[in-house]
Amino acid sequence: MDHLRKSLYRILETSAGKRRGLSLIVNLLLITIITLNAIAIVLHTVPEYNRRFARIFYDFELFSVGFFTVEYLLRVWVSVENEKYHHPFWGRLRYVFSTPALIDFLAIFPFYFSLFATDLAIVRILRLFRIFRLFRISRYSHAFRLIQNVVAEKKEELILSTTLVIFMLIIVSSVMYYVEHAAQPDKFSSIPATMWWGVTAMTTVGYGDIHPITPLGKFLGGISAIMGIGLFALPTGILVSGFNEHIRVQKKSRSMYCPHCGKPLTDH
Amino acid sequence: MDHLRKSLYRILETSAGKRRGLSLIVNLLLITIITLNAIAIVLHTVPEYNRRFARIFYDFELFSVGFFTVEYLLRVWVSVENEKYHHPFWGRLRYVFSTPALIDFLAIFPFYFSLFATDLAIVRILRLFRIFRLFRISRYSHAFRLIQNVVAEKKEELILSTTLVIFMLIIVSSVMYYVEHAAQPDKFSSIPATMWWGVTAMTTVGYGDIHPITPLGKFLGGISAIMGIGLFALPTGILVSGFNEHIRVQKKSRSMYCPHCGKPLTDH
Amino acid sequence: MDHLRKSLYRILETSAGKRRGLSLIVNLLLITIITLNAIAIVLHTVPEYNRRFARIFYDFELFSVGFFTVEYLLRVWVSVENEKYHHPFWGRLRYVFSTPALIDFLAIFPFYFSLFATDLAIVRILRLFRIFRLFRISRYSHAFRLIQNVVAEKKEELILSTTLVIFMLIIVSSVMYYVEHAAQPDKFSSIPATMWWGVTAMTTVGYGDIHPITPLGKFLGGISAIMGIGLFALPTGILVSGFNEHIRVQKKSRSMYCPHCGKPLTDH
Amino acid sequence: MDHLRKSLYRILETSAGKRRGLSLIVNLLLITIITLNAIAIVLHTVPEYNRRFARIFYDFELFSVGFFTVEYLLRVWVSVENEKYHHPFWGRLRYVFSTPALIDFLAIFPFYFSLFATDLAIVRILRLFRIFRLFRISRYSHAFRLIQNVVAEKKEELILSTTLVIFMLIIVSSVMYYVEHAAQPDKFSSIPATMWWGVTAMTTVGYGDIHPITPLGKFLGGISAIMGIGLFALPTGILVSGFNEHIRVQKKSRSMYCPHCGKPLTDH
Repeated sequence: MDHLRKSLYRILETSAGKRRGLSLIVNLLLITIITLNAIAIVLHTVPEYNRRFARIFYDFELFSVGFFTVEYLLRVWVSVENEKYHHPFWGRLRYVFSTPALIDFLAIFPFYFSLFATDLAIVRILRLFRIFRLFRISRYSHAFRLIQNVVAEKKEELILSTTLVIFMLIIVSSVMYYVEHAAQPDKFSSIPATMWWGVTAMTTVGYGDIHPITPLGKFLGGISAIMGIGLFALPTGILVSGFNEHIRVQKKSRSMYCPHCGKPLTDH
Repeated sequence: MDHLRKSLYRILETSAGKRRGLSLIVNLLLITIITLNAIAIVLHTVPEYNRRFARIFYDFELFSVGFFTVEYLLRVWVSVENEKYHHPFWGRLRYVFSTPALIDFLAIFPFYFSLFATDLAIVRILRLFRIFRLFRISRYSHAFRLIQNVVAEKKEELILSTTLVIFMLIIVSSVMYYVEHAAQPDKFSSIPATMWWGVTAMTTVGYGDIHPITPLGKFLGGISAIMGIGLFALPTGILVSGFNEHIRVQKKSRSMYCPHCGKPLTDH
Repeated sequence: MDHLRKSLYRILETSAGKRRGLSLIVNLLLITIITLNAIAIVLHTVPEYNRRFARIFYDFELFSVGFFTVEYLLRVWVSVENEKYHHPFWGRLRYVFSTPALIDFLAIFPFYFSLFATDLAIVRILRLFRIFRLFRISRYSHAFRLIQNVVAEKKEELILSTTLVIFMLIIVSSVMYYVEHAAQPDKFSSIPATMWWGVTAMTTVGYGDIHPITPLGKFLGGISAIMGIGLFALPTGILVSGFNEHIRVQKKSRSMYCPHCGKPLTDH
Repeated sequence: MDHLRKSLYRILETSAGKRRGLSLIVNLLLITIITLNAIAIVLHTVPEYNRRFARIFYDFELFSVGFFTVEYLLRVWVSVENEKYHHPFWGRLRYVFSTPALIDFLAIFPFYFSLFATDLAIVRILRLFRIFRLFRISRYSHAFRLIQNVVAEKKEELILSTTLVIFMLIIVSSVMYYVEHAAQPDKFSSIPATMWWGVTAMTTVGYGDIHPITPLGKFLGGISAIMGIGLFALPTGILVSGFNEHIRVQKKSRSMYCPHCGKPLTDH
């Protein structure tokens, strides 16, 4: 039993890049099922497909939930092999409340809950939880760990720039509301409504459903566009430069092996 | 009396990051009230909320103005503790005309003025002044000092690039006016009207309310978009790179402490 | 015969920048014909021009195909001069399946195929293949080799960021679908349909044909715009910085010649 | 006479930053008149202002042309003081065909020509030439010399990236034309018409007057947006980074003075 648990742990939790044999096969199978789930979640909302392949969608849903449930229970069972969660009860409990385990749980729990739900509105909301199955892929993709690290490292800058974005948004929207409200009382109906204009204008999306029409409003809109775009571009700029830095460091550290003996030059 | 003034000064004006005890509590209270004011200013323009919570909005307004007035008067009183404003009269006068004090004043003065105003248009304009209460938060947030420094440091570049933006805007709009006026006399009615197109096109907002329809106009619009976007992106690029540089310097200087004795390695 | 093949090989395949005499003339002629083809492909779709210059378009098409066919056969014939393809049969076959030869083939083959095609739909699709004639210019332009190198070098980053873009797109569109579907069942009709909104919003194009109208949808749209734009800007940022790096390296290596003897200082 | 010419040359042609006394006054006067011309050119197209201030606009036009004509003739007269144009006849002729002299000429010549023009269409086109008066300001503003230098230095990169932009535009528009033409024959009427979509989509302006509606068109539009935006951002990225580099070099060279004797450390 102990041996089985140890083997299973190695199969399920070996980190990407080091997987061999059965571990590789099981993880590729998991990635395939998650990807198929993503496709199913997206396509089952197309009425035509939903009608034609209703049976397939339903069967695949049952299979996925079953598969994920077994996988989840096994992961909880073997989690004690990890030093961090070695206590049979408290360790497993702590594992259950770790982020990846919570994502795994939220990806399957709504299905069971929806069996007992009678309110259609609740069933619809529960269906939305299936999106968490997509987040499960983050366990396997290098890209997610990368962006997580970038966000963690640039946390301070992102908070600072988001503060400025929110502040700018409130100021610009407040002024624009007082300027345009009289001319377009239905569109610039309140400051929160004007903030929708503010976001679409300063992210430069500009759907065109709401925009100033008075000369003063256009003047202020132009000024605040030129000024505000810079602030709204701050988070984007921080993310892009953080991403570039990270990749550079990664590529560098990868070449930090002795050309003669092949051993890493640092123990990082 | 002198002792009280000194204590109050320390409570009110201790710079962020060094606040302890009462100073921390008072400043957190101030930040809370300012944030609540921001929320109230935004939400009271929503007709539904305004009707339902009219009483609460009004009471909160009275409370805020009262609180801010007392705070303002105390700040003026204790300002002489600052070396820059040590003269009992001229020092306080100079403090009153400093930027933060003016913002504090503009945040409360319109309320008193509106009590005597009979013209509804003036009351509306005075209400707009309440936005200055938001600017009061700049006293507490690190982000504002940062962006202020970036703007100050990159002042020259920002002026240069803004000159280019304005010049490009006039040139492109003038040409487009002569090209499109005949085809759309109501939209491209004058060069100032065409400048609204110029801003929305070259900031890439593109609401779609005004755009060329003649082949020549579209050709020129395309050319000037590809060329002009680069110029309009200059201020944004300058701001983003300035922001990144500042953060880098800040992080560096923060780590400039001796790992053994903990003393700063530079006296910056 | 052998001598002729060698001469022809030098005329056709001398790399850009080293062409002299006949090689230069032939290659300039080729570039001119390809450029004229690009203009013809674009203009023949304008009904007015197509009617008026139908004869010219047709004759030019015949001439181009003839010219390109002769050129293609000559290139296959002389390809054995290249060390990589020295075998008379297998070498030529391998050349035929190399990327540039495939582009050359796809640029002319559809013409011959369309002579036998009776279905108009197929003829239209075959006409689309003429676009491959534009790709032929990549043989001559420095810009294409540059961007190819940049893409090759930044391959990993581009794959990582594209993964994030697709993931973000599915997540945001799924949530938005559940939020907006009830209010706009015709526009947000399914998740794939909502993904069209997602792309236009997060690339900041914002045509305005589809956008949230419910308060919750607008709120989520605003949040995801500010967050998502950063992710969607990653590929752009990677490409721009890669392009800049490449040019810098190129300029540097170009100046790496001894100012006295003119010999390269490195053997890179 | 010779002395007067020398003095006038110094007054008119002293480079910015070194102007003193009369030279400073004359040049400030010129800048003022050019700026007023810019304002007049923009405002006279507003019907209301044009009607009310017709007399003022006309008188100012007469005054400006007279002033600029005298200035132009004086500049030609004194141009021989410059070593480059020292020959009394050929030197002046070469000056007349220099870029700044041509701009000065194009800023006034159309006025004289329009006195003899009877065709209203020609008069309108001649009026457009007045925009050249704006370009005259480039003589005085630091920003223009800066951007000129950046463009000159990054010429190669800008040509390369523009090549890629044009190529991408033709490819994407050709494919989109074949995909969308059947569904929207009036909007995607030809490849040139589709190129208008291509420009608005890939510069992310997105007016919304033209966009794909078929599922395949939307799919291709999404793909090409994500891919094409990177290419279209290349010129912008090059301009922004070139601008930043230039400013950095400028700031550095400005501080390259000996702190002891105040003399420049380099003779650059």
